[in-house]
Amino acid sequence: MPVFLDATAPDFETAFAALLGAKREDAPDVDEAVAKIIADVRARGDAAVFALTAKFDRLALTAETMRFSPEEIEMYCAEVPEGERVALELAAERIRAYHARQMPEDALWQDESGATLGWRFTPVSEAGLYVPGGLASYPSSVLMNAIPAKVAGVERLAITCPTPDGVVNPLVILAARIAGVDEIYRIGGAQAIAALAYGTESIAPVDKITGPGNAFVAAAKRRVFGKVGIDMIAGPSEILVIADAENDPDFIALDMLSQAEHDESAQAILITDSPDLARDVAAAIERRLETLERRAIAGASWRDYGAVITVSDLSQAAALSNRVAPEHLELCVADPMGLSEEITHAGAIFLGQWTPEAIGDYVGGPNHVLPTARSARFSSGLSVMDFLKRTTLAQMTPEALRAIGPAAETLAISESLEAHGLSVRARLDKLND
Amino acid sequence: MPVFLDATAPDFETAFAALLGAKREDAPDVDEAVAKIIADVRARGDAAVFALTAKFDRLALTAETMRFSPEEIEMYCAEVPEGERVALELAAERIRAYHARQMPEDALWQDESGATLGWRFTPVSEAGLYVPGGLASYPSSVLMNAIPAKVAGVERLAITCPTPDGVVNPLVILAARIAGVDEIYRIGGAQAIAALAYGTESIAPVDKITGPGNAFVAAAKRRVFGKVGIDMIAGPSEILVIADAENDPDFIALDMLSQAEHDESAQAILITDSPDLARDVAAAIERRLETLERRAIAGASWRDYGAVITVSDLSQAAALSNRVAPEHLELCVADPMGLSEEITHAGAIFLGQWTPEAIGDYVGGPNHVLPTARSARFSSGLSVMDFLKRTTLAQMTPEALRAIGPAAETLAISESLEAHGLSVRARLDKLND
Repeated sequence: MPVFLDATAPDFETAFAALLGAKREDAPDVDEAVAKIIADVRARGDAAVFALTAKFDRLALTAETMRFSPEEIEMYCAEVPEGERVALELAAERIRAYHARQMPEDALWQDESGATLGWRFTPVSEAGLYVPGGLASYPSSVLMNAIPAKVAGVERLAITCPTPDGVVNPLVILAARIAGVDEIYRIGGAQAIAALAYGTESIAPVDKITGPGNAFVAAAKRRVFGKVGIDMIAGPSEILVIADAENDPDFIALDMLSQAEHDESAQAILITDSPDLARDVAAAIERRLETLERRAIAGASWRDYGAVITVSDLSQAAALSNRVAPEHLELCVADPMGLSEEITHAGAIFLGQWTPEAIGDYVGGPNHVLPTARSARFSSGLSVMDFLKRTTLAQMTPEALRAIGPAAETLAISESLEAHGLSVRARLDKLND
Repeated sequence: MPVFLDATAPDFETAFAALLGAKREDAPDVDEAVAKIIADVRARGDAAVFALTAKFDRLALTAETMRFSPEEIEMYCAEVPEGERVALELAAERIRAYHARQMPEDALWQDESGATLGWRFTPVSEAGLYVPGGLASYPSSVLMNAIPAKVAGVERLAITCPTPDGVVNPLVILAARIAGVDEIYRIGGAQAIAALAYGTESIAPVDKITGPGNAFVAAAKRRVFGKVGIDMIAGPSEILVIADAENDPDFIALDMLSQAEHDESAQAILITDSPDLARDVAAAIERRLETLERRAIAGASWRDYGAVITVSDLSQAAALSNRVAPEHLELCVADPMGLSEEITHAGAIFLGQWTPEAIGDYVGGPNHVLPTARSARFSSGLSVMDFLKRTTLAQMTPEALRAIGPAAETLAISESLEAHGLSVRARLDKLND
């Protein structure tokens, strides 16, 4: 049974803290196995990747067949029905337009000392994108990862996507082509992450790896972090809906189930100032769970982690939501933009009853790779910034050095860093000659 | 002996690859010890922190004495001589001015479908800053970490700084006060990181932890990552200088030694198109090493990891520098701004002969917390962005949902996510009623 809480009840704080603290994911400890796989790929390169792919994916690869050829890509793309192709193209166009606006500005200015200061953004040169195979092989995730990379200016973008028993999802191939991906490899697991990070005879190493994956992929990403950059390690999906009385309970039920159907560890929470709506949404969820295709998964998520909280007013709802810091937040209220200003921690906000979270998963434009497990308190969704880095610029003139150099020398001496101080002093002495 | 390479020699590529691949740091494996310390602090809170501080810092603390009182802070600040105080204030002012320019803009716009899209930045609410004790207790690092946090709008900023045997560095306390730090605790090591991440009876938990530390601190930061955000794990310092013939060899020698004096594992590299300068800088380094206070450290760094590379032209120097992706890059050439446009990977660039790297360590304005170990290929120095996160915003109108909803439904069905599709379809049906 999901949890039903009344925020005005005396024992609410205890129950809410328990809800916040509930551990939803018990990732299996595969770290040792992953360390061995990475060492094997570093030592034997292609040969290790082929052996591991034969073992895990029951697929015999060679240096020639590991990478999809232009002809294969063409063939798979042609298999995608018109409707799906058009939908993918619309999604790609909207995602591209949104992310293009994220491109940051370079800056260069002169300050009152005469020093020139600034920064410049440059793209990561080469990036790798992990795409899961099988059930969780989502073409939408290919767009959401690859398009920001290409908008940022990544020159070489390689995808790895396992094809167990040789089964390929043509939509993934088409999404990669639409997004401008440069290379697609039919490998997966920790061996794919190792190949991207360290390179093999056939796969050049990359500088950054993004994309979701299972426990092996997550452990491998943690291990190669430092050698390459990685994105966040995503946890199970979450949605929090703040709703007033003026809502269709079935809309909200479906929005909550659309996260619950991802994963038995997903979490859907409703916070409302209407006890009637609370009751009606819960009933609508039960009704929808009778027929939903993924009712086993969605039902388990709702039963184990679902929650309905009634509050006295919407500001209280916003305050509770801030403590959850949800990945997805729907504001189904009369003035959603106004209420959004009370939100301090959330991955993505969906405003008003005509904005189901699923719009954001596909065609809204913003990224659907978002911080989970309360990490919206300190991190953001994927963006072009994940594929850019900032180099700071500083140029002193003799006058600027005369103005601020002595302070640097003083601080260097106070930190017992003599050469630091001398590097400034030698120049000041020359200027004073 | 440092390495001397000629980029036009036939065996250069092999030697340069060896230089790039050289492992400069062998961090001791303290992970198991750190796991125990974190578990202890989580289980016993203050009591564990007191016991560990007694053991490692030979200091008996209580809930009352663990945090510096306003009177103590006042007392230590009064001990700082006028010259150092003024220098710290100048540095703080310049760092604040630079970082204030980094504050990103929120955005909100309406697209052609009628949808409202955008994003909003919000600060991390609570942050912790680790400051090492003893020799590496640098007041400049307090400014460099704390000021971006306060500029970003962090409400509560707590510092932990161990005081072995009770010895306090008054400059650290003053730097913290100038930067606007809210709480200062005299604890360190993995126990300080655990206390910041999980909280104790006396220390409230934070959302993000930044700042440098030893192997125990680095391992603890890795372990608490996910529960809280962390900044990068910094490696030994690096400088690469690109210089033409028109330079004072002693300036460049001192700049290179100012990184070498940090750490025996630090690295200083000179790339020049002038064989004469190469020879003169090497000689100047040897001369300075005769008298430098930290000559043991700087000499070991120079001997084991130093390199001088001669090239045929400065574009070749830029290309080699891009493969190194140095933390600090000095461009001591006639047209430094022009050459900087050929630089694709570097943490910070210092332009021209009047900009010693040490200016950037203290008073330049840009941050001195920068990516090491070639990670400038995929990451940036510390900035206000490390203390902000972006929430995406999306609001559909009925018209917008009619325009783009069907594509979302198509893609949801193609990914076998029925509830996602139904959440859009239910709304489209209602609109079509």
